[in-house]
Amino acid sequence: MFKIRMLVSAIALTGSLSVMAAEALPTTAPAPADNPTTAEKVELGKMLYHDPRLSSTGTVSCASCHNTMLGGEDNRPNSMGVNGQTGGRSAPTVWNAAFNKVQFWDGRADSLEAQAAGPVTNPIEMGMKSWDDVVARLKTIEGYQAAFEKAFGKDAISKDNATKAIAAYERTLITPNSAYDKYVKGDKSAMNEQQVRGMNKAVELGCTSCHSGPAFNGPGMFQKFPMHPNGYFEAQYHFKKDKGLAEVTKKADDEHMFKVPTLRNVALTAPYFHNGSVPTLDKAVKLMAKLQLGKDLSDEDTADIVAFLNALTGEFPKQTMPTLPGTPGSTFN
Amino acid sequence: MFKIRMLVSAIALTGSLSVMAAEALPTTAPAPADNPTTAEKVELGKMLYHDPRLSSTGTVSCASCHNTMLGGEDNRPNSMGVNGQTGGRSAPTVWNAAFNKVQFWDGRADSLEAQAAGPVTNPIEMGMKSWDDVVARLKTIEGYQAAFEKAFGKDAISKDNATKAIAAYERTLITPNSAYDKYVKGDKSAMNEQQVRGMNKAVELGCTSCHSGPAFNGPGMFQKFPMHPNGYFEAQYHFKKDKGLAEVTKKADDEHMFKVPTLRNVALTAPYFHNGSVPTLDKAVKLMAKLQLGKDLSDEDTADIVAFLNALTGEFPKQTMPTLPGTPGSTFN
Repeated sequence: MFKIRMLVSAIALTGSLSVMAAEALPTTAPAPADNPTTAEKVELGKMLYHDPRLSSTGTVSCASCHNTMLGGEDNRPNSMGVNGQTGGRSAPTVWNAAFNKVQFWDGRADSLEAQAAGPVTNPIEMGMKSWDDVVARLKTIEGYQAAFEKAFGKDAISKDNATKAIAAYERTLITPNSAYDKYVKGDKSAMNEQQVRGMNKAVELGCTSCHSGPAFNGPGMFQKFPMHPNGYFEAQYHFKKDKGLAEVTKKADDEHMFKVPTLRNVALTAPYFHNGSVPTLDKAVKLMAKLQLGKDLSDEDTADIVAFLNALTGEFPKQTMPTLPGTPGSTFN
Repeated sequence: MFKIRMLVSAIALTGSLSVMAAEALPTTAPAPADNPTTAEKVELGKMLYHDPRLSSTGTVSCASCHNTMLGGEDNRPNSMGVNGQTGGRSAPTVWNAAFNKVQFWDGRADSLEAQAAGPVTNPIEMGMKSWDDVVARLKTIEGYQAAFEKAFGKDAISKDNATKAIAAYERTLITPNSAYDKYVKGDKSAMNEQQVRGMNKAVELGCTSCHSGPAFNGPGMFQKFPMHPNGYFEAQYHFKKDKGLAEVTKKADDEHMFKVPTLRNVALTAPYFHNGSVPTLDKAVKLMAKLQLGKDLSDEDTADIVAFLNALTGEFPKQTMPTLPGTPGSTFN
């Protein structure tokens, strides 16, 4: 699961000028060989993604924390799972997650399929005791029997197929045609002067050394956060409380290593950072410059970069709401 | 607010044969003179209805408990509000609520507009301290400034307009073309023999004395529940713990008085009754016969009536998901 991290290795953060590959966001996402995207899977996945009955209490769906009516998350510092419980991390956006090579803040899942399996049985997220229980519940719902059959064939309700369907749906959650995308495709009027200035400053400063690629997510890259050794702002924001990948691997080398998150639609996903401790985008930009690049950004430079980041807000595809099949009886307490 | 109840007065439950008015569900709902339905209001109302930022924690929207992807409620005995809190009542369906003359189980709201104002500031539901706080929060969101302006004119963000928009949206939540509707419109093949038998038994038994009208909700009618004086099943289901309308009015006459709920889509809204204590529809039918009409229903008669009730499941209109405008910064803890 952590191979990808090894492959990308630690790319040195020099802060020196780097060339930003100016690429528009692709409008489709590649699917793995064992889970080709089909309309039937996407439809089933959309149902499962929005179905709160995948949680122990019947109150929390994937969409509760990764809300596709909003910026793909919940605008909270940390999400609220079943029975009002909260964890320590801020929900990453689901929009364009298909372009991440690893998922979760600590990158512990190497595919959307693997990610989708996690929250359902996490006791403070969706709280199901086991996937066997999820499968058993889905099997009691006739409409799901039919939808799984359409997507995968007869008697196909399983953890594997449920997570495949959810991943197939998530691969459709792409937000193209941002001002930036139009700009790089040749429409030089799509970004205003301040946004162009902010883009150039982001490159000069070194932001795009890590936030690289069309999704500005350095796909597959992990970085230490915070990088700066002297612990600026730690008393205020408690960034180091969370050891990142090391929470999973228990290895010293992985301490405070986090997946590089996408900057697409970042203007819609306040509050910021892995623990959601920073309420606004201008503060987040200043902190990143100081903590990762050792630079003190002026208010003017910060405003320019924020203007550019707003140019990364894409077009949200119009979705129809799924009609979820009926529950035969009460299953929740 | 309680005038309507006085007007309809207590219609005697005789259990004798009553004529069922065979009417299909209307496809549009009337709007009050001061809130004519417009496309702009409906669009704004749909946004507000699905926006969890109308709750203190940013986790609970109207749709959380009255889920339009499901049968208009949450399939729970009682709903779960902010911070995992639960109350004592089961969420009524929002589908066809436009045809209720009063809202809430205790009928304390005489319009959809009045109902919409309630849960937002209920401490165990959406938990906002006041509507002033809601309005202040909405005003920070640029997209809402624009959407309210489109629907109501300049600087129009207010409690009154927010609840009007939500009510306008709810008036579009109608599920026509059930098997029963097709049947009463002349397609005698739309219901099978068992369903027709069940319909006739429901009339003979007296179910439709109260569950009358095209929405089977005896519009505006209150009834005592449970009616039977000797407290059958009370130890098991605790129906009498909730004093119904008397919880609001504190009048002895209003004790255990509840609004007659719709039977439309009842097959999708388990568990049943005001406290959600009865898990399945067949049990609910048997209990109603015993408690309200003093009759012991056979398994066969019960199965026939359940088959008929399934014929009241309508067609759910395809809805597009609203795109909710972005939050400028973190507002939740």
